Amino acid sequence: MKNSLYFNIKVEEGIFDKIVAEQKSIGYYTLPEQDISYLLNYLEEFKSKNDYDAIKDIAIIGIGGSSLGPKAIFRALQGIRDFDKRLHLFESTDPASIRSTLNKLDIKNTHFFVISKSGTTIETISVYKYVISLLKTKDIPLDYRFTFVTDDGSKLEAHAKTFNSFVLHIPVNVGGRFSVLSAAGLAPLFLAGVDIQRLLDGALAIKQSFFEDGYIKETLLKKATYYAKNSMNYNINTLFAYSESLDSFTDWYVQLWGESLGKKQRHSSFNVGLTPVGLIGPKDQHSFLQLIVEGLRDKSVTVLKIENFDDKIKIPAITLKELEGLDLMNGIAFCDLINMQADSTIEALLDKKDIPIDTITLQHIDEENIGKLIYYYELLTSLVGQMMNVNTYDQPGVESGKKILEGKLLEERKNFPPKKGK
Amino acid sequence: MKNSLYFNIKVEEGIFDKIVAEQKSIGYYTLPEQDISYLLNYLEEFKSKNDYDAIKDIAIIGIGGSSLGPKAIFRALQGIRDFDKRLHLFESTDPASIRSTLNKLDIKNTHFFVISKSGTTIETISVYKYVISLLKTKDIPLDYRFTFVTDDGSKLEAHAKTFNSFVLHIPVNVGGRFSVLSAAGLAPLFLAGVDIQRLLDGALAIKQSFFEDGYIKETLLKKATYYAKNSMNYNINTLFAYSESLDSFTDWYVQLWGESLGKKQRHSSFNVGLTPVGLIGPKDQHSFLQLIVEGLRDKSVTVLKIENFDDKIKIPAITLKELEGLDLMNGIAFCDLINMQADSTIEALLDKKDIPIDTITLQHIDEENIGKLIYYYELLTSLVGQMMNVNTYDQPGVESGKKILEGKLLEERKNFPPKKGK
Repeated sequence: MKNSLYFNIKVEEGIFDKIVAEQKSIGYYTLPEQDISYLLNYLEEFKSKNDYDAIKDIAIIGIGGSSLGPKAIFRALQGIRDFDKRLHLFESTDPASIRSTLNKLDIKNTHFFVISKSGTTIETISVYKYVISLLKTKDIPLDYRFTFVTDDGSKLEAHAKTFNSFVLHIPVNVGGRFSVLSAAGLAPLFLAGVDIQRLLDGALAIKQSFFEDGYIKETLLKKATYYAKNSMNYNINTLFAYSESLDSFTDWYVQLWGESLGKKQRHSSFNVGLTPVGLIGPKDQHSFLQLIVEGLRDKSVTVLKIENFDDKIKIPAITLKELEGLDLMNGIAFCDLINMQADSTIEALLDKKDIPIDTITLQHIDEENIGKLIYYYELLTSLVGQMMNVNTYDQPGVESGKKILEGKLLEERKNFPPKKGK
Repeated sequence: MKNSLYFNIKVEEGIFDKIVAEQKSIGYYTLPEQDISYLLNYLEEFKSKNDYDAIKDIAIIGIGGSSLGPKAIFRALQGIRDFDKRLHLFESTDPASIRSTLNKLDIKNTHFFVISKSGTTIETISVYKYVISLLKTKDIPLDYRFTFVTDDGSKLEAHAKTFNSFVLHIPVNVGGRFSVLSAAGLAPLFLAGVDIQRLLDGALAIKQSFFEDGYIKETLLKKATYYAKNSMNYNINTLFAYSESLDSFTDWYVQLWGESLGKKQRHSSFNVGLTPVGLIGPKDQHSFLQLIVEGLRDKSVTVLKIENFDDKIKIPAITLKELEGLDLMNGIAFCDLINMQADSTIEALLDKKDIPIDTITLQHIDEENIGKLIYYYELLTSLVGQMMNVNTYDQPGVESGKKILEGKLLEERKNFPPKKGK
């Protein structure tokens, strides 16, 4: 992984030490070094209770931090490899979406993950109830059909223990949006055939490079300083990834960045924040690029490139009648074209002089590089959060909506008392 | 369609007259009244040359304005109806994406649309060459397998006429991102089984309401005035749609808004623009909402709700051991839950007092309502563009990147001369 900044700034002093100090209480920092034997044991037990090869579908019932991470990684790797198993996500209460996801899977041969840190996420439990009820209607046994990933001691864990199922924990001091390298992300990915050790190895490489004076330290510190210092004028950060396989990665980035940095500042009531926008090239050259090039100067741009694509299919060297002028592309590999497009965008933006740009180049899409990318963004988020003087790891702003919803549900209950559950 | 604004402003004078004047030269305004007999003739001819029922896959080779519109509409309608045919999009040069789209379709029974206003879009022609070459390799006849939608007299049209194929035109004064209600959007949708007349009827209803002093006129004028006047402080506009089926609609909105309004002002070199962000509820309550609630006050929010969902599946009235506290949702339809979630978000945001909010309620997802929504957003874009004093209909900012890419391709050609095409 390479990261080149096309802007300069003096790094804020003391910020590195703050991150070193923060490490002791924030759990995600230690995830790269975790011993995955608990997951090896889990898989072994899983195989002793289920016909592993017969399971073709893995479905995650989860939302936000419980779905975006594994989805991002699986989707990226699908671009380079065929998996035996498919991964599905139940991450909405939209009935059309629930039904369409159900239609895609062979429910008899599906293993379900129910992932909720608190264990009481309304969307997750609602869909879980629907799935339980459906399985019962179809007389499909529930035994060992579910893996629950939740906080140690949550009500969901207590529930899980009332029947034969698997339970894994999210470490207490690891927040949902930083949980992709915990059991929440690793367990479903491991079951689906992802090399999770290499994911962690990639993350560890970035961690070491940052904490042990490696190449990424200065770059991350500069980039974070620039973003934090300019958060009032460049209040939007765009991540422009030149690979369709990274479209769910950008969704993961949007949650991480937005939910971590959109906060009231500590010791003040001032609202601060940086708005993340995920873009995919070359598609969004035909959509969002005009706004970056000629619009208000409120955006920084990170262009993310893949150096080596596995697939070398070429634009055929054929001349189309009346379109002879377009023979220019003949014989060029699509992967070279997409990288030329990325480079052209970078050059065009650099020409403007007043758009802060940096480029990240991954050698390849694979577990190790995705692990690097994830940890890079987590570190960057922590750094910017420290500099903007916010609590990067909470999300108090979503509580009021939850309380209002509970009120509405209680009101509904008064008007239409529920039938007795069984 | 209802639109309620929770903010007030005095409408800028003279703006309505400017739109009335603009109508004469900008083609999209007249699309709702178009006579669709040319498309009826097209379908009839299509059926005389192809076995219509045998065609299961329709693939659009196009990018930006040539793919986002039909994708948005088809995806929305798929939420309420099963279609006999599937719609696929080739909208990238990413080799993994090209291959994965090809894997999803039965190429022998696929009809291809090649959609490019200019007729020379590099991405589109590159993929088209790949498809042509693949069909030849597989000895699949090309006769009547393609429909080309392009400007009258383009080189692509000349090419189309060199073999048996269908050709339709995008009216000259209709730009790509405003072309969804022209042949570019209507033809593939019609072939896929969409009731395009009802789409146009919906658009016409909004058009008449706006131009003939109906309910939407004052609302649109106020909203546009507010957005334009506050474009420097509220520089981000979020569209928060509570329906998964509208996820591609938000992509369409992002292109329309960003590419139309991100411009240098007329008679000045000042960069202005409004940044669109598409969100989907309740998913993005667990991602982006924290940033809206507690972050920098730089965002307006439009919450889009569907009043009636077709699917009435309910949360089963079962009590889960150890999770008795979550019986609150028992027996509630998912569609009611999602709307309660939308209302809770609206209330929580209104409590903040300093976030400009409006709500759009569609009675239902169907052709007519989607037609209304499209035309509503097109009109809003035109109004804001006029008030911000930009040319809403061009996109000069993307030209420099294209020129740089051509230079790179020429350079590549010098180093590796292409084999002679055949």
